[in-house]
Amino acid sequence: MTGAELKVGIIGAGYWGPNLVRNFYEAPGADVVAVADLDPERLGALHKRFPAVRTTTDHRELLNDPKIDAICVVTPISTHRPLAEEAFAAGKHVFVEKPLAGTVADAEAIVAAARSAGRVLMVGHTFVYNPAVTTVRGIIERGELGKVQYVDSQRVNLGLHQFDFNVLWDLGPHDASIVLYWLQEQPDWVQCVGACYVQSDIEDVVFLTMGFPSGAIAHAHLSWLAPSKLRTMTVIGDKKMAVYDDGHSSEKVKIYDHGVDKLSADELRRSYRSGDIHSPRVPVTEALQLEVRHFIECVRDGTTPRSDGEAGVRVVRVLEAANRSLKAQGARIALTEPVRS
Amino acid sequence: MTGAELKVGIIGAGYWGPNLVRNFYEAPGADVVAVADLDPERLGALHKRFPAVRTTTDHRELLNDPKIDAICVVTPISTHRPLAEEAFAAGKHVFVEKPLAGTVADAEAIVAAARSAGRVLMVGHTFVYNPAVTTVRGIIERGELGKVQYVDSQRVNLGLHQFDFNVLWDLGPHDASIVLYWLQEQPDWVQCVGACYVQSDIEDVVFLTMGFPSGAIAHAHLSWLAPSKLRTMTVIGDKKMAVYDDGHSSEKVKIYDHGVDKLSADELRRSYRSGDIHSPRVPVTEALQLEVRHFIECVRDGTTPRSDGEAGVRVVRVLEAANRSLKAQGARIALTEPVRS
Amino acid sequence: MTGAELKVGIIGAGYWGPNLVRNFYEAPGADVVAVADLDPERLGALHKRFPAVRTTTDHRELLNDPKIDAICVVTPISTHRPLAEEAFAAGKHVFVEKPLAGTVADAEAIVAAARSAGRVLMVGHTFVYNPAVTTVRGIIERGELGKVQYVDSQRVNLGLHQFDFNVLWDLGPHDASIVLYWLQEQPDWVQCVGACYVQSDIEDVVFLTMGFPSGAIAHAHLSWLAPSKLRTMTVIGDKKMAVYDDGHSSEKVKIYDHGVDKLSADELRRSYRSGDIHSPRVPVTEALQLEVRHFIECVRDGTTPRSDGEAGVRVVRVLEAANRSLKAQGARIALTEPVRS
Amino acid sequence: MTGAELKVGIIGAGYWGPNLVRNFYEAPGADVVAVADLDPERLGALHKRFPAVRTTTDHRELLNDPKIDAICVVTPISTHRPLAEEAFAAGKHVFVEKPLAGTVADAEAIVAAARSAGRVLMVGHTFVYNPAVTTVRGIIERGELGKVQYVDSQRVNLGLHQFDFNVLWDLGPHDASIVLYWLQEQPDWVQCVGACYVQSDIEDVVFLTMGFPSGAIAHAHLSWLAPSKLRTMTVIGDKKMAVYDDGHSSEKVKIYDHGVDKLSADELRRSYRSGDIHSPRVPVTEALQLEVRHFIECVRDGTTPRSDGEAGVRVVRVLEAANRSLKAQGARIALTEPVRS
Repeated sequence: MTGAELKVGIIGAGYWGPNLVRNFYEAPGADVVAVADLDPERLGALHKRFPAVRTTTDHRELLNDPKIDAICVVTPISTHRPLAEEAFAAGKHVFVEKPLAGTVADAEAIVAAARSAGRVLMVGHTFVYNPAVTTVRGIIERGELGKVQYVDSQRVNLGLHQFDFNVLWDLGPHDASIVLYWLQEQPDWVQCVGACYVQSDIEDVVFLTMGFPSGAIAHAHLSWLAPSKLRTMTVIGDKKMAVYDDGHSSEKVKIYDHGVDKLSADELRRSYRSGDIHSPRVPVTEALQLEVRHFIECVRDGTTPRSDGEAGVRVVRVLEAANRSLKAQGARIALTEPVRS
Repeated sequence: MTGAELKVGIIGAGYWGPNLVRNFYEAPGADVVAVADLDPERLGALHKRFPAVRTTTDHRELLNDPKIDAICVVTPISTHRPLAEEAFAAGKHVFVEKPLAGTVADAEAIVAAARSAGRVLMVGHTFVYNPAVTTVRGIIERGELGKVQYVDSQRVNLGLHQFDFNVLWDLGPHDASIVLYWLQEQPDWVQCVGACYVQSDIEDVVFLTMGFPSGAIAHAHLSWLAPSKLRTMTVIGDKKMAVYDDGHSSEKVKIYDHGVDKLSADELRRSYRSGDIHSPRVPVTEALQLEVRHFIECVRDGTTPRSDGEAGVRVVRVLEAANRSLKAQGARIALTEPVRS
Repeated sequence: MTGAELKVGIIGAGYWGPNLVRNFYEAPGADVVAVADLDPERLGALHKRFPAVRTTTDHRELLNDPKIDAICVVTPISTHRPLAEEAFAAGKHVFVEKPLAGTVADAEAIVAAARSAGRVLMVGHTFVYNPAVTTVRGIIERGELGKVQYVDSQRVNLGLHQFDFNVLWDLGPHDASIVLYWLQEQPDWVQCVGACYVQSDIEDVVFLTMGFPSGAIAHAHLSWLAPSKLRTMTVIGDKKMAVYDDGHSSEKVKIYDHGVDKLSADELRRSYRSGDIHSPRVPVTEALQLEVRHFIECVRDGTTPRSDGEAGVRVVRVLEAANRSLKAQGARIALTEPVRS
Repeated sequence: MTGAELKVGIIGAGYWGPNLVRNFYEAPGADVVAVADLDPERLGALHKRFPAVRTTTDHRELLNDPKIDAICVVTPISTHRPLAEEAFAAGKHVFVEKPLAGTVADAEAIVAAARSAGRVLMVGHTFVYNPAVTTVRGIIERGELGKVQYVDSQRVNLGLHQFDFNVLWDLGPHDASIVLYWLQEQPDWVQCVGACYVQSDIEDVVFLTMGFPSGAIAHAHLSWLAPSKLRTMTVIGDKKMAVYDDGHSSEKVKIYDHGVDKLSADELRRSYRSGDIHSPRVPVTEALQLEVRHFIECVRDGTTPRSDGEAGVRVVRVLEAANRSLKAQGARIALTEPVRS
């Protein structure tokens, strides 16, 4: 870092890029210097909102600018690897939007490039910075739920359809990153069934199941075809249960003191416990702001991001296998962690 | 039918039996004459509530009573076939609780017995008599939703665990019977994954997927481990979408004029239509009362019940295959309708 | 009490009477001996449901029956006083449905009759036995909410219109009895505005305000004209806030750790505290069952009912004054407790 | 208007001012030229967000600038009159934030100044531009609800307390402006009761009732002390009922085909109709944007704003009378429209 403030360059001014610009602006300790995009119209719109930001259609201007410390890659998935590799080669720290890459091989190549360059690599798994998600992580960590048995997720809404990848690659990174963060383990198998309705070869509905070594399973309904937007995750523990409903304005997390105490045929009804329900206060800070601050701190302090390259690879591994299951009629696909030297 | 009123005998006075007694009592055109159960304590409790009903521990008393026109079999699943066969042999009309049997072979044997005896066989798929379910059927039938693309169901609650069968056989008959009734077609494949948490070999959570010849899929989350009771089914059509939420007191059915009109990359956001939401009035009559009246009418008029034996067999066929999938790690199981002579 | 069991006679077999019969039946320690009503048709319907109960069109049969210990008066309001006085004169304990009477004078006469006879008088203010209401009382009593500042109540639904009294006398007894029980004080003034829409001289909508010596106020919207049934009461304390929503199936009571800490112009936003939300488990027992058991215990043990005659008078005093305010364009009416000798 | 675009100057850069700046920016046909505020710090913050806007601590710079066509007064209520009068004297069109003034006399003086100057005066009653509010107005106008009987409003939240005026003047303008717009009539009486809890002489809770010549009444619960933010208005018509819930994300307006058909003692239950519920699609455009565009159009076309000065006076008349009722223990205050020459 050349100065007191992290100087940031952003490649990609599409849907998500301006959000990053705004959040780096608002975060203390950073400044957005320049934005690159192939589309001059997008750059114009961005410039209107942020007149102080330099814009260019050539991303190499950013890489070659010695004043820029960090690059954010907010471009189509297939370009993540080459752009990240270029940025590391130029000595920059790199933030890559989720998913890290479209294949495990590409994702691992980016991790390798970061390691060689000795620079920070962080993946934009925004949800692991979401205050409700970290609240649930704390609840699990303190053992309040007991052993987690299963997670069920509803992540559906009407649109926005993508043309180059399916709903699994669009919404799946959220579930994979959240569940891996919550459980702190990686699935040893995945299964995925789905269907293509609006476009002939792009799944707009999938049901994803992940099985974990602990015996836990996580299931997600991911869809672009739904009457209402749902972002609900239910976590069943053997002591308590929790619901994280991102659509609720004031009670995003609820902990239910409900469970099965000791199953008895004689007194089946007494086997169940329905106790109090508690909704801890969840801070209202925007997750993206927390994510951006975390990146700034990691670069400044040389610490490893919560959503580092390894975390990014793990998510891509789940998605790649799930996509394989999808094409194989939902057959169970084993996930084997490659041997590390 | 020996007189103006249908005389009914009920075998089984467990959890569900008294509900049937009460509903036959309240229905015009029928009278409950006697109830049989092996457990005298249950019979005592029932007699206290319904002092006019004769009780016995020997179900053959009911079969041998010439005044009894119809028998309801409300006993554990494994006894459905022998009891139904006995009842048909005695010339009775028979109502069997859902699921019709524990195997397709048994279910088909019951159907064959009904056919030989020339008597009415009806299966207790209560939900196909539920006013909200029939309202949705009407909406689909009139083409309001367009072509049905997929159905997603959440059917979860805390308990009641069963000891002799899993949550698939407990809650699955509802989803199978509703979806087959709505779509008026039978799945050509099923898949089912799940897990056993509270009991070592009884699944308390399963995710069931059915694939239909039309291309529709139906998915259900069935669980005895959940913080709140949910009974929600979402139907996605290519014109409109509908939600049936049995837990809502006043808006059980909602029709959303939402959809994807014509996907266009240029104006992706304009591709989606979010129109009005309509909640038709749903009569509040108890489904079981409507079911019981339907049975009385079918016997009286010699008509075929909506949930006849064939419908019962179709549901068992789905469950049997789903259970096979469950034991085969969720592998896709093809359903082939046996050739009829 | 002549024997081990309280023998109960019930006068009035209209809408509410059969509920009392059923609940005395289910309660341990009591037996319903006879029911009187002027309408033989109602008696016939009741007899069909409860064949062991004697019925008569002459309530004096009940009063003259020495085996009957207690009389329930479940008749139109104007008959409460004469029937209760007759029952006390016959040496019976008396349960009177709410409101105790249509005037303070009549209500006080009933209390005087009870005192002279040395018998128990209990008023059917069912809600003060409702588990959610007593849960809130406990929360207030333990000081969790701090000083109660105000209560707002929504008690509205579509119908049932009455022909001989207005919505204030129909729904108001609930709010008055609950609030007086929660606050353990009596209002020193009331105000009431309303309007008559469906019938020309029967208010179907009123807004009732009660002011208390402590400075607390309680406000209630009572209506027979509403799109949905609401039974919601919000209690604002200077430490915490509580909501009692009788229409919620699983979270009837919620305590909000919200409040104004210390108002500061400099940091207005920091003056507010929005903390955790807690929903204590509320037992699901029917309030009427708890009320009936309470009556049985009070008679057996000679204790004073929670909703004794004095409580009944206090509620009538509020309603009578509120009705006066209603006729006086909502003018504030002072409530002065009469001097007791 | 001196050019193609309306040149706007804004006086007041507090909480609401920047929202106006942003909305005039986004609206076609207008440009924000300058902002005045006494506080240089606020001006600095605003300048950072909108670098192209000139700022000044002297509002007369704006009035003296011949290029500025219109002035927005977004300052404390007591300054509305002098600033508006100055602006009209300088020949500007004027937009005044709600409420128009703190007294009817001041409000009428502003209207008179506008009339003398022959310039447009518009009051910032944002809610009458809210798409859900105009949807309900359309429903009433088309007679769908029949004759409106009463309106009940819940407008409560935790904070933000004001130090110089009470909750009536803070939240009351919304209810008054909406109800007068919906009913298209003015109340002939108001009543208001309330209490001061957090500050000794500033009411933080009031219950406001307005009575209309048609017989309709409108009631509002306004509070800064509530566990949850509520913005719900229920409109009871003699044909149908409507609910406008501003806190609902997708069903802001619902029309209930519920009502009392013809009250009959014989068949009381059949007197009520509970039919379908319909939720019309409500556009998601921000109300403030629509309001700003309306102002631009009115200036451009010389038309009268929906929330013109007269509408502003009517709202102040309600508030002034309600405040008088509040100080007079809720006594009914008659509203008499002054004679116009």
